[in-house]
Amino acid sequence: MQVELDRRRPGQSRITTPRKETDTCKISSGIADGLTTGSPIKVEAPNTDQRGHDYSEMSLAYRPSHADATYDFKYGVRSVQGGGRSSARETIGRVAAGAVAKKILKHFSGTEIIAYVSQVHKVVLPDGLVDHQTVTLDQVESNIVRCPNSEYAEKMIAAIDAVRVKGDSVGGVVTCIVRNAPRGLGSPVFDKLEAELAKACMSLPATKGFEFGSGFSGTFMTGSEHNDEFYVDENGRIRTRTNRSGGIQGGISNGEIISMKIAFKPTSTISRRQNTVTRDGHETELIARGRHDPCVVPRAVPMVDAMVALVLVDQLMAQYAQCMLFPINPALQEPLLSHPEPAAANVSL
Amino acid sequence: MQVELDRRRPGQSRITTPRKETDTCKISSGIADGLTTGSPIKVEAPNTDQRGHDYSEMSLAYRPSHADATYDFKYGVRSVQGGGRSSARETIGRVAAGAVAKKILKHFSGTEIIAYVSQVHKVVLPDGLVDHQTVTLDQVESNIVRCPNSEYAEKMIAAIDAVRVKGDSVGGVVTCIVRNAPRGLGSPVFDKLEAELAKACMSLPATKGFEFGSGFSGTFMTGSEHNDEFYVDENGRIRTRTNRSGGIQGGISNGEIISMKIAFKPTSTISRRQNTVTRDGHETELIARGRHDPCVVPRAVPMVDAMVALVLVDQLMAQYAQCMLFPINPALQEPLLSHPEPAAANVSL
Amino acid sequence: MQVELDRRRPGQSRITTPRKETDTCKISSGIADGLTTGSPIKVEAPNTDQRGHDYSEMSLAYRPSHADATYDFKYGVRSVQGGGRSSARETIGRVAAGAVAKKILKHFSGTEIIAYVSQVHKVVLPDGLVDHQTVTLDQVESNIVRCPNSEYAEKMIAAIDAVRVKGDSVGGVVTCIVRNAPRGLGSPVFDKLEAELAKACMSLPATKGFEFGSGFSGTFMTGSEHNDEFYVDENGRIRTRTNRSGGIQGGISNGEIISMKIAFKPTSTISRRQNTVTRDGHETELIARGRHDPCVVPRAVPMVDAMVALVLVDQLMAQYAQCMLFPINPALQEPLLSHPEPAAANVSL
Amino acid sequence: MQVELDRRRPGQSRITTPRKETDTCKISSGIADGLTTGSPIKVEAPNTDQRGHDYSEMSLAYRPSHADATYDFKYGVRSVQGGGRSSARETIGRVAAGAVAKKILKHFSGTEIIAYVSQVHKVVLPDGLVDHQTVTLDQVESNIVRCPNSEYAEKMIAAIDAVRVKGDSVGGVVTCIVRNAPRGLGSPVFDKLEAELAKACMSLPATKGFEFGSGFSGTFMTGSEHNDEFYVDENGRIRTRTNRSGGIQGGISNGEIISMKIAFKPTSTISRRQNTVTRDGHETELIARGRHDPCVVPRAVPMVDAMVALVLVDQLMAQYAQCMLFPINPALQEPLLSHPEPAAANVSL
Repeated sequence: MQVELDRRRPGQSRITTPRKETDTCKISSGIADGLTTGSPIKVEAPNTDQRGHDYSEMSLAYRPSHADATYDFKYGVRSVQGGGRSSARETIGRVAAGAVAKKILKHFSGTEIIAYVSQVHKVVLPDGLVDHQTVTLDQVESNIVRCPNSEYAEKMIAAIDAVRVKGDSVGGVVTCIVRNAPRGLGSPVFDKLEAELAKACMSLPATKGFEFGSGFSGTFMTGSEHNDEFYVDENGRIRTRTNRSGGIQGGISNGEIISMKIAFKPTSTISRRQNTVTRDGHETELIARGRHDPCVVPRAVPMVDAMVALVLVDQLMAQYAQCMLFPINPALQEPLLSHPEPAAANVSL
Repeated sequence: MQVELDRRRPGQSRITTPRKETDTCKISSGIADGLTTGSPIKVEAPNTDQRGHDYSEMSLAYRPSHADATYDFKYGVRSVQGGGRSSARETIGRVAAGAVAKKILKHFSGTEIIAYVSQVHKVVLPDGLVDHQTVTLDQVESNIVRCPNSEYAEKMIAAIDAVRVKGDSVGGVVTCIVRNAPRGLGSPVFDKLEAELAKACMSLPATKGFEFGSGFSGTFMTGSEHNDEFYVDENGRIRTRTNRSGGIQGGISNGEIISMKIAFKPTSTISRRQNTVTRDGHETELIARGRHDPCVVPRAVPMVDAMVALVLVDQLMAQYAQCMLFPINPALQEPLLSHPEPAAANVSL
Repeated sequence: MQVELDRRRPGQSRITTPRKETDTCKISSGIADGLTTGSPIKVEAPNTDQRGHDYSEMSLAYRPSHADATYDFKYGVRSVQGGGRSSARETIGRVAAGAVAKKILKHFSGTEIIAYVSQVHKVVLPDGLVDHQTVTLDQVESNIVRCPNSEYAEKMIAAIDAVRVKGDSVGGVVTCIVRNAPRGLGSPVFDKLEAELAKACMSLPATKGFEFGSGFSGTFMTGSEHNDEFYVDENGRIRTRTNRSGGIQGGISNGEIISMKIAFKPTSTISRRQNTVTRDGHETELIARGRHDPCVVPRAVPMVDAMVALVLVDQLMAQYAQCMLFPINPALQEPLLSHPEPAAANVSL
Repeated sequence: MQVELDRRRPGQSRITTPRKETDTCKISSGIADGLTTGSPIKVEAPNTDQRGHDYSEMSLAYRPSHADATYDFKYGVRSVQGGGRSSARETIGRVAAGAVAKKILKHFSGTEIIAYVSQVHKVVLPDGLVDHQTVTLDQVESNIVRCPNSEYAEKMIAAIDAVRVKGDSVGGVVTCIVRNAPRGLGSPVFDKLEAELAKACMSLPATKGFEFGSGFSGTFMTGSEHNDEFYVDENGRIRTRTNRSGGIQGGISNGEIISMKIAFKPTSTISRRQNTVTRDGHETELIARGRHDPCVVPRAVPMVDAMVALVLVDQLMAQYAQCMLFPINPALQEPLLSHPEPAAANVSL
C-alpha cells in the first residue's frame, strides 16, 4: 500500500508539486496477523506539509476552472485551505484501497493492471509503441513521467519543464490496461463494465474524457473493419484476433486485454494573473500562490489503476453473487474455474 | 413520451433498420387525471415486428463484437432472438423515462437538453457550426440523420447510404448540450456530475467514449489557455467568459451550458461474411441476416438526451435532499430560488 | 409460483375477502427452456374482479387507520380505487418473487421456510404445540386458517367467523421458521440478519411488531437462563443445545432453526360506522363497503415466508461475494461446502 | 454530541459495566466556524481503558449467545479482544451521528425524540404512567436507569443490582417516542417508515423484538376497537383521536406521536460457569472475566433515540427529493410549510 501511495504523493520529482507530503500510511483496524478480519480497514495518512497562508489570496476570489465556485454554489460554504473537500488529497483513499483491490485480483486470477502516461500536452506516444502483452510496472516506473517508452518520456518531461518555469500547466492522457481479466464481469444494461469504468475514472479530479478499445477513433471505421473476429486458441479457449472491443463486449468482459484512455486537463491552479470574481460578486485579479503540479498526469497514473482495480473487484464480487451459486455452464463461466482450491486456505491479504 | 419514442423507433427512415416496429406506448399505472400519483409509472411498448427466423443462423455462432459471446460467458445461457437482454430494444425504457425527466427539468428550471449528430464515419461537423445558445430541437429534427447543419447532414446521410448498400455499417459521434441547467448539481468526490453523465451515456449500447467540455482536445492546451475566467453578468450573476469546463467544475454544475460528446462504434451486426466460432468451440463463418441499422447514431440521439435528463433529475432530487433543507447562502444556492411558488400548484406532469 | 399465489389470493375460503381474484400468473420474460436467462423475470397477474364503485364512498373521506390519509399527506394526490399504491395487491409481487427465492434456497442448501398462524385475536397457540423440527407445509395447509394444530385451527376459524358476521375484523400473529439455513448469513453491524428480516416483515401491510428467538418474552429471563450453550453434535458440528437466539447471534446465522413472529393488526377497513373527516377537513361518518378480509393473517402466511426467503437469498448472494472468493477457514465457513459440484449443472430453476 | 456520548459511555453508574471509558469525542473534519461544510464529519473517540488480558480465556472458547462463533462461521477469522467487530463500542458512531440528526430535526420542525426504559427483567412500567405529550429528557435523565417514573426506576435499579452481585444479567425494554414528527415521511411499500425504524432498531446489539403503536397487544383487539378515528383540531389540522397506529399509517407518518418499543435480551457475557466449545470443536467450560453490563438497557436508551433520529433525517431528505420539487397540494403536504424562510439563513448546525 505504501508503495502505491509513494507513486501518488506530492514532491516525488521536479515535475510534480514541490509540496513535501510523505503520505506515510498507518493501518489501524481491519487487519490482524496479516489477514483481513472482516472489519473495515482504516488507513490514515496525515498531511505533514500544510501551509494555510498560501491560500489567503484565494480566499478572496474564486480560482478559474477550479471547484472553488461550484462548491460554494452547492453548499453555500467555502473551505479554501488546501482546496477543502475538492483537494486532490482525497485520492490517497482511492490509491490505498486500490492497493488492496490489486492484491485480490492478482491472487484470484493473476489479473494485472498497468497504467502509464501516453500523452503530455502535444507529445503523443503513438499507439503500438508500447506492447500491452508485455509492458511491465518496472518499465512504467523507470522515469518520473511514467511513460514506458524512454524516448517519449524525455519529450514529455521537457514539455512539463517548459510550462513549469512559466508558472503555467499542461494536461495529458493516461492509458490503462488490464491483463488476465476474468471473463463475465459487468452487466448487460445499465451497469455495463465500460460504464462502471467510465464513472470510476471520470470521478478522478481534472478528467475530461474516457474511451476504451478503439474509442473515438473507432468511429472512423466501418463495421467490417472494426469487428473482432473470433477464433479458438491452442488451449481451446474462445478468443478474438483483434481487440478493438477493448476487452469488453455488450458490457461484459471477454477475457482479452481491457484497455482504456483517460484525458486530464491542464491543472487549473496556475501562478499567472487571471481575471476572476469575489464571492460577493466583485471582479478582481488572482495570482494563485500555493505549490501546484505543472502536470497532474504522472501522479494520476496510480490513481487510474486504483480506480480500475476497485471496479474490477466490485464486479468480481457481483459475479460471484449473481452467477456462481449455480454455474449452469462451467465450461464457459470461467471465474469459477480459476477459483483456488479450498485446501489452499490461509490466503494472506 | 410517444414523440420521443418515435424518434428512437426502428424503421423511421431509410438510414435506419427496416424493421417496422411502431413502439406505440401505453401507460398503465402511475398516472391519474394527468398527474403522477406517486406509484411507479408503467409503460408498455410491445414489439410488433419480431421475426425470430432471422436469427436462426446466429444461434449457431457468436456474432463478432456483439454481446452474444460475453453474455454466454457470464450467464452460461443464450437468448439469441432479437439479441435477448442485449437487444437495443431495452433503450425504449430509457427514452420513455427520459421523456418524463425532461418534463420535470423544463418545468422546474426551464432546463433544455438537445442532442444531435456531430459526426458520421469520416464526416465531422466542425465545432462552432452549431450555436449552442440557440440550436433548437426543430433544427435537429429537420433531417433524418439529426444534424442541425443541413449541409453536413446531407454528407452524413450519403456516408450512411454508401455502407448500407454494401451490408456494412459506420459509427459516429453524438453531441449533447444542456441549457439552463441548475447550479450546484453533482458531488465533489466519487459522484461527480461528469462521472454520473459518463456512466449513463457509456451504458448505452455501442458506445466507445465520452468527453465533456474541452474533452480530449483540451489536453493539448496549457492551463492559462484552458481556464475559464469569471465575470459578473448584467444580472449580477457569476459567470465564465469561456466554457471549456463544459458547465461542470470539480464535479458540480456551474450554470453554464453543459456539453458532452459520445462516440458510437459501427454496428457490429453486418450482412457480410465474417470468421467466428460456435458455442462449443468450432470455427465457422457467419453472415448475419436480421435487419440492422447501418448506423446507430441518428437513433442514439434521443437515447443520449434521455440518459442525460435522467441523471439531471436524480441530481436535482439529491440536491434538494442534501442542501435545500437549510440553504445557508440562498444568494449562491440557486435551485431554491427557481422553485415555483407553492401557490402555483396543480402542476401537470 | 402459482401454488404460492393461490395461497395468497382473495376468495380462497370463507374467512378471507369474498373478492374472486384468480391471480393467475404469466411469466413473460427471463425464463427460457426452464432456466432463468439472466434477464429480469417479468410476472403478470391481472386483476379480474375490480369493482370501482365499491370505493365511491371512500373517495369522499379518509378510512380510519388506513393509508388513505397519509398517502395524501405525502403525495398530495389520492388513488382510492382498490387502495391504489397502498393496496395489498402489491404483495402478489412479493409472493411471486419469493417462490423463486425458495427454489434457490431449497436447491442450494435444502433450506426450508415454513410460516403458520400462531394467534388469531384471543386464540393463542401455546409455544411447543408445533414441533419446529418436523412441521410440514402440508400440515400448515391442512386448514383454511393455516395453523398446523387442528384443534387451535378450529378455534381460530370460529374467532374469525364471529367478527366476520358483524362486519368487524381481528388481527393475529404469524410464526415463521427456517430449517437448514446456511451459516454465516448476515452482517455484524447495521445489516444484521435480524435487522434485514425485521425490515422485510415490517414492510408487509398491517404489521405492528416483529420478534425473533425468545423475543419480548426473553426480556423476562436472566443471562444464565437465556444463553444457548454450545456442544458438538455427532457429525462434529458446533451446535447450541437451546435456541433462544432464534438461529441468529450477533447479526449472523448460526445454522440452528431461525424463528420469528410477526404481529398483524385487525384489518382497518370494516363495514361499521366510523367517525372520520373528508380531505378538505369536514367531519363525517363512513361505512366502508368494499369486500375486505375479516382477518388478514391466513393470507399473510405466504407473504411472510416469501419475504423471509427473499432476505435469505440476498444474504446468500452477499455471503458469496464477500467471503467465498477466498474462504480462509473452510471447515467453519460452511456455505462453500454445501455448494453443488459444477458437474451437477443444468440446474433447473 | 459529547452529552449524548456521555449517556452511552461505560462506567457512568454502578449498574453499568465498570470499564472506565471516557469516550471523549473530537471532530476533525466536516465542521468549520460552527457550520457543516458538506464534507464528511469525522468523529474520533479513542478507547482509553482496554484490558486485553481480560479476554484471554475467551480466546479459547466461544461465549454462549455471543457473536463470537457466528463471526468465525462467516469470516473464518476471530477478533476476540473487546469483541472485535461485534463490540458494542461501535454504537459510539451511531450516538455521535444521532446527535447531529437530532439537531437537524429539532431545527427543521421542532421534532423531539425521547427514549426511556419501560421494563427491566420483571419490572414492567404500566402503559400510561408516562405521559407521551409531556415527558422530558430531564425526567428520563433524573435517575441512572433512565425511567422517567421514579418509583419504577427504583424497582428497576434494584432488579439490576440483584443480578449484578451474582455475576448474572437481565434484559428489558426501551420505549421511544417522537413528538412533532413531520407528516409524509416513509414510503408506501417496501420502505415503510415502520420497516426502516424496525431495521434501524433491530441493528442494535442484543435486540430481540420491535413493535410500534399498539404492537403485539394490538392483535388482541377488533378493528372497530383498534381503528383511530379522524377529527379536525382547533387549528384545522386533520388528527386522530386515539393513536394505536403509533403515528404511522400505511408506512407513512401522520403527524401524531410516533411510538415504538424495543426488546433487549439479557447480556450474554456473564461471570458464571457455562458449557461451551472451542473453535476446533472440543467441549469445555467458560467463565467470562471482562467487565460487562449487568443490564444493557439504560445505556441502550441513547442508542435507540440516535437510530430513530437517523432514520427520520434520511426520510426527511427523501421526502424533500421526492415530493417537494413540485408540491401538488401544499395544504396537505406539510413539510414544505414548516420550512424556515431562506432569509433565516446562517443556520448553525
